[in-house]
Amino acid sequence: MQTHAVTMLGTGLIGDFYTMTLHGQRGRDRVRVVYSRSEGRGRAFSERWAIPEFTTDMREAIEHPETDVVVVALPNHLHEAAVKAVAAAGKAVLCTKPLGRNAGEAQRMLEAVEKAGVFGGYLEDLCYTPKSLKAIASARAGAIGDVTWVRSRETHPGPHSAWFWDGRLTGGGAIIDLGCHCIEIIRSFVGKGNRPVEVMCTTDTLVHPIADEDNAIALIRFESGAIGQFEVSWTFRGGMDLRDEVAGTHGTIWINHFLRTGFEIFSAGTTSGYVAEKAESTAGWLFPVGDEVSELGYVDMFTDMFRAMDEGGVPQETFYDGYVVNAVMDACYRSAAGRAWEPVVLDWRGGTTPRIAKTPEMFEGQVVIKREILPDGRQKLILKDPATGDFVDRVVAGA
Amino acid sequence: MQTHAVTMLGTGLIGDFYTMTLHGQRGRDRVRVVYSRSEGRGRAFSERWAIPEFTTDMREAIEHPETDVVVVALPNHLHEAAVKAVAAAGKAVLCTKPLGRNAGEAQRMLEAVEKAGVFGGYLEDLCYTPKSLKAIASARAGAIGDVTWVRSRETHPGPHSAWFWDGRLTGGGAIIDLGCHCIEIIRSFVGKGNRPVEVMCTTDTLVHPIADEDNAIALIRFESGAIGQFEVSWTFRGGMDLRDEVAGTHGTIWINHFLRTGFEIFSAGTTSGYVAEKAESTAGWLFPVGDEVSELGYVDMFTDMFRAMDEGGVPQETFYDGYVVNAVMDACYRSAAGRAWEPVVLDWRGGTTPRIAKTPEMFEGQVVIKREILPDGRQKLILKDPATGDFVDRVVAGA
Amino acid sequence: MQTHAVTMLGTGLIGDFYTMTLHGQRGRDRVRVVYSRSEGRGRAFSERWAIPEFTTDMREAIEHPETDVVVVALPNHLHEAAVKAVAAAGKAVLCTKPLGRNAGEAQRMLEAVEKAGVFGGYLEDLCYTPKSLKAIASARAGAIGDVTWVRSRETHPGPHSAWFWDGRLTGGGAIIDLGCHCIEIIRSFVGKGNRPVEVMCTTDTLVHPIADEDNAIALIRFESGAIGQFEVSWTFRGGMDLRDEVAGTHGTIWINHFLRTGFEIFSAGTTSGYVAEKAESTAGWLFPVGDEVSELGYVDMFTDMFRAMDEGGVPQETFYDGYVVNAVMDACYRSAAGRAWEPVVLDWRGGTTPRIAKTPEMFEGQVVIKREILPDGRQKLILKDPATGDFVDRVVAGA
Amino acid sequence: MQTHAVTMLGTGLIGDFYTMTLHGQRGRDRVRVVYSRSEGRGRAFSERWAIPEFTTDMREAIEHPETDVVVVALPNHLHEAAVKAVAAAGKAVLCTKPLGRNAGEAQRMLEAVEKAGVFGGYLEDLCYTPKSLKAIASARAGAIGDVTWVRSRETHPGPHSAWFWDGRLTGGGAIIDLGCHCIEIIRSFVGKGNRPVEVMCTTDTLVHPIADEDNAIALIRFESGAIGQFEVSWTFRGGMDLRDEVAGTHGTIWINHFLRTGFEIFSAGTTSGYVAEKAESTAGWLFPVGDEVSELGYVDMFTDMFRAMDEGGVPQETFYDGYVVNAVMDACYRSAAGRAWEPVVLDWRGGTTPRIAKTPEMFEGQVVIKREILPDGRQKLILKDPATGDFVDRVVAGA
Repeated sequence: MQTHAVTMLGTGLIGDFYTMTLHGQRGRDRVRVVYSRSEGRGRAFSERWAIPEFTTDMREAIEHPETDVVVVALPNHLHEAAVKAVAAAGKAVLCTKPLGRNAGEAQRMLEAVEKAGVFGGYLEDLCYTPKSLKAIASARAGAIGDVTWVRSRETHPGPHSAWFWDGRLTGGGAIIDLGCHCIEIIRSFVGKGNRPVEVMCTTDTLVHPIADEDNAIALIRFESGAIGQFEVSWTFRGGMDLRDEVAGTHGTIWINHFLRTGFEIFSAGTTSGYVAEKAESTAGWLFPVGDEVSELGYVDMFTDMFRAMDEGGVPQETFYDGYVVNAVMDACYRSAAGRAWEPVVLDWRGGTTPRIAKTPEMFEGQVVIKREILPDGRQKLILKDPATGDFVDRVVAGA
Repeated sequence: MQTHAVTMLGTGLIGDFYTMTLHGQRGRDRVRVVYSRSEGRGRAFSERWAIPEFTTDMREAIEHPETDVVVVALPNHLHEAAVKAVAAAGKAVLCTKPLGRNAGEAQRMLEAVEKAGVFGGYLEDLCYTPKSLKAIASARAGAIGDVTWVRSRETHPGPHSAWFWDGRLTGGGAIIDLGCHCIEIIRSFVGKGNRPVEVMCTTDTLVHPIADEDNAIALIRFESGAIGQFEVSWTFRGGMDLRDEVAGTHGTIWINHFLRTGFEIFSAGTTSGYVAEKAESTAGWLFPVGDEVSELGYVDMFTDMFRAMDEGGVPQETFYDGYVVNAVMDACYRSAAGRAWEPVVLDWRGGTTPRIAKTPEMFEGQVVIKREILPDGRQKLILKDPATGDFVDRVVAGA
Repeated sequence: MQTHAVTMLGTGLIGDFYTMTLHGQRGRDRVRVVYSRSEGRGRAFSERWAIPEFTTDMREAIEHPETDVVVVALPNHLHEAAVKAVAAAGKAVLCTKPLGRNAGEAQRMLEAVEKAGVFGGYLEDLCYTPKSLKAIASARAGAIGDVTWVRSRETHPGPHSAWFWDGRLTGGGAIIDLGCHCIEIIRSFVGKGNRPVEVMCTTDTLVHPIADEDNAIALIRFESGAIGQFEVSWTFRGGMDLRDEVAGTHGTIWINHFLRTGFEIFSAGTTSGYVAEKAESTAGWLFPVGDEVSELGYVDMFTDMFRAMDEGGVPQETFYDGYVVNAVMDACYRSAAGRAWEPVVLDWRGGTTPRIAKTPEMFEGQVVIKREILPDGRQKLILKDPATGDFVDRVVAGA
Repeated sequence: MQTHAVTMLGTGLIGDFYTMTLHGQRGRDRVRVVYSRSEGRGRAFSERWAIPEFTTDMREAIEHPETDVVVVALPNHLHEAAVKAVAAAGKAVLCTKPLGRNAGEAQRMLEAVEKAGVFGGYLEDLCYTPKSLKAIASARAGAIGDVTWVRSRETHPGPHSAWFWDGRLTGGGAIIDLGCHCIEIIRSFVGKGNRPVEVMCTTDTLVHPIADEDNAIALIRFESGAIGQFEVSWTFRGGMDLRDEVAGTHGTIWINHFLRTGFEIFSAGTTSGYVAEKAESTAGWLFPVGDEVSELGYVDMFTDMFRAMDEGGVPQETFYDGYVVNAVMDACYRSAAGRAWEPVVLDWRGGTTPRIAKTPEMFEGQVVIKREILPDGRQKLILKDPATGDFVDRVVAGA
């Protein structure tokens, strides 16, 4: 296992989270230099995390002779230029979500990285939460049969930084901010080789006085017939609601990442003692998480990235994945504007996936719709006559 | 408070539930006569519930001289004729959900009841669960502000009776069976005077070898801008999943009616002792409910119906509500077929509802997007310049 | 099923709950006359619940010619006299919990009722919650094997009425108020014929400036070897915490009656709209219950009482049960004072219960301690040599 | 931050967990040599974790020239000798829980480490779970007021290795195995300077054919008046139940470490796909945890140990803490045998802690017992007359 020296581009909340992760626990990797557009923020960040150097010159940061990996933790409109500069410098690049403001930007970043032959990782943390990793592995191992439906919900009362609210800089509103997580979570469960075929999306701006959507719901139809459903909102009240639900032909998965994780505090609130981050208040019933950078996937994400880098392999989340996510979001925005199902326009590399299918069970020439075990041990069959389409109940001896 | 003598039409599962409720606890009302198409089932039912008479003649049952209320607990395709017969007999009629197989049937039933001047009640139990009643009252009292979104989910592994699977008899699949509940729950939260304007729905038949949908998702846009979302499925694994979620501008409501209600049993399963109804197994972790007829709303439903009858008033759930639900379901089926948003075609009696709106807060000529309290007590404002559309952060003294 | 006319003695919170239950839903029974020591409270109560008469003469209320059942809903120190007066009047008497301030009072009440030959019912509602009834039935049907341990916890921030705080009137503090529930819940799970042999209890007064305990924990050892454990507190923060946990040799039961029942509301609290009773605030995350009189057992309790009365049978909760509970509480107070295990002094009618026992499984002359299934299907046995007492692992082929 | 090379003594389940943690994620530390009593297990372990060397000579392992830290992951009866050997070798020693089989052993280990001047860390992982760390910090910051009660529960169906069942090797049964965790969790919440004064414990052997306890409950009274309560069992059914509950004068904390952490899977179980460790089955509802070594505290535990080592400081969990835990367990066993409260015999270094106390609020010469806000905004006071001890209600204007 090698040790990596990192150039961090950006000093916002996400830069803090990344650095907290890299410098956390017994981590062997370190941020060596940080770039900020503002000297004050760069200095503060470098002091906060004991980083040897900071600079306001992005190129200098990227080309720093002692770093081998560059993490792009900048606002969305700066991703493309930054990624291209890192590719040109021949270094590994890890880019925060979303990859681009749209599929065009994302595709150019993908090409830049592939052309330069450098390592590209897409920092989609929520696909790396320990619960997600285990659930995805369970689903792939067949524990819930064929996946028919995935719901991914990510909502909170709105972002903390000004630039997030400006669709010109980000590419949109709540979809760009939160939907990108949901789409990749959905893909992880239905299978990354399962092509997202078309999208139906509705958006609205219900609470905040902004030009972009503060609420959106979308349905994504995959080639297998599975449906992905996401709900994103900047108007949720009560904290941050991150939940995933997966339905399969033989099972169900429910994941709650944040507000109900087995940790509950009631505080009468008479002290100034800290209780929980991101709670809307410091009194009443509060629902903290344990180790946020672990529970939100940052720890496993960087582990996977560096493992892939060291082994010359491919990380779980690639620039190509980021591009697919952008393509789905583009379709969402087109669908919301046109109020219609929209195809996902995409340079697809994932092959084909067969339709979810089940050979019906037969019983004396009739199709078995359902078997139920009766209290006396016998079985009730619901049968369909294939000729007439009529349905009947039939009680038979137990198995 | 008067005492009612009931004619029960139908001896299926829902007839059992209704009679269990009417005859339950210290109930003053009794089923006096039961009608079944089958003499055997009629006899068994009357013995099971100590009902004095049974008959295979529906007219005789309806016109029984000692009953004043007729409960229609028949398969969907028999509702219209039964309701018309009861109206003709001049008795109060309570009809199970869905009212009709489609809005046309429902509207004719509504007209029959109104023309005859008899009491008509729509037996939509899930709007009457004690949790729902309290949550709806909280929402109406303003506890969560303006309702922006309601999710109602009703899924299980598929119905117990053969006729449910035959869309010719029912009017459809999982939407007709389960979606009718969801739609009325959603209406209860967004306000019954809030017109359902249009619907986007997608359906599929993924698991069962039937002609109708075993899975469906729909979005309903209301006049206020609120979105209702329902998910219904006959392919859910793990029991029966009945959950409602409501988002408002100032709060959130989460209701779980069945699988997680504070009652959990692990059984190694070595005995034949009963543990939980509707569980898929009798071993492992099981999640029973307490008093099913109470928790599913049957008790409060009949109380409201008889209260309204006795007071000459209107019950919470009327034939008109049943008709609206059918109209929304019709739009769902058209939308799924046409893959487009479809208007809800409806003889609307509910008036108009204004758009959810908030006057933006201003600060020194800028629009306040968000206020956050910093650990040191100061406030961080995210401000938007109305002229340029630019966003900035600004830290000010605390309130 | 007969209809009962009730004399209600007492107009406090519990009188309200009882009357709300009796007059609730489609109840056939009615409170005919209410007695209060105060004319003002009597009048207000009778108006609140549409009761035809009120009086400040207890004897008059008891002997009212039109009532056949008297409910004792008075402070504890008035139970004995009231019960004796009802017995003398030859009417059925239902007495709220605890039966007496101590076992002596309870035993005299038991004798009075038995001597007079009148029906006596002990209004222990928490043994009648729908969850409890189902869980107790499951346990008795063997779903969790032999019960080895029951925890019953009942805590809240303290009672609402002044007299509750005065141990001279009540017989104690949190044990008398809340422990009586726990003890009877525990008995219901371990079996009512399972003799409570001895008790270890510790009490303290940690928060409130009162003479009696505001916190107590007790262990009750039953003849079978099962342990009951209760925790009661008048200093709990966050609402009312009512939870029962049952461990058996083949299973587990967890019941949450109040704070986590699948109903959650977050309110930003800007309105005066009601949200939840007994919450400590009206903002933040709140956890209401659905139908309180149903969920807390009042509905099923009165149904059982009247059913037993009508059938000439015995209710689930009798005066004898109330006496047993008082005897256990007496032992708790002696144990807390003497800091030692104390026998439960009791005129026992319940027979004997054998010790929980299991014949050890043998394998090739060794005692099998545990079997674990390995991932490859083989089994790992942990074996004990009966001669030497040594333990070894042994892997064998799967079953 | 330095990098440490570790000698691992022991190749059992706990050795696996420790090594999985040390070698996990981006960890900079490595196990350099492993000692096992069995050559086969040593080889397998070294191959499983890519450890350069293994040996069956403990001394050789301890004195390995390239390691600076020795982790004792051996059965309990081997701890003392191992710790003394490491101390003699002048290396840092980290010893798994419990420190000794009794306080005598623990005290000798403590002395050995202190005399030799080497670093000693007590590997009590459950005090290091991310939830525990945050909850303990909240409690110390005053978020729940004075801690009055802590319940720590640790139960499962019994250990996986033969030696655990032999009290001669371990020092006892479920208390020694599981109670050690609970005691230290309790101390962390009530404050480590809060002396454990006395203990009341009851034990039984209800299910397994062994000589030691398979179930135990204990109460620990601390100098402040706070009560710690632990429940340990080797007979729990349904998985592993790890829960902590903390009551304070101004708040409440509930932590669930294992069975309900926001991750739920239902599997019809028709596949061999893995779902969850430590579940009793692979079908039905299962409750996995995310990242077990993180959620159970191993990651933060080693981070704290190495941090303290590098800084020349003291870890959160020391050999002295391990000794205190053993002293409390000794008192538990004496109490269970003698059926009486037993003092905790202890060489106490923690200073004194004042009794939990509150100055009563006065209102017009009366003691305020409780204030309740009425629906109309007024306040109801429950008042106690200090002279007579009588209690009255009094309604006053709102604050």
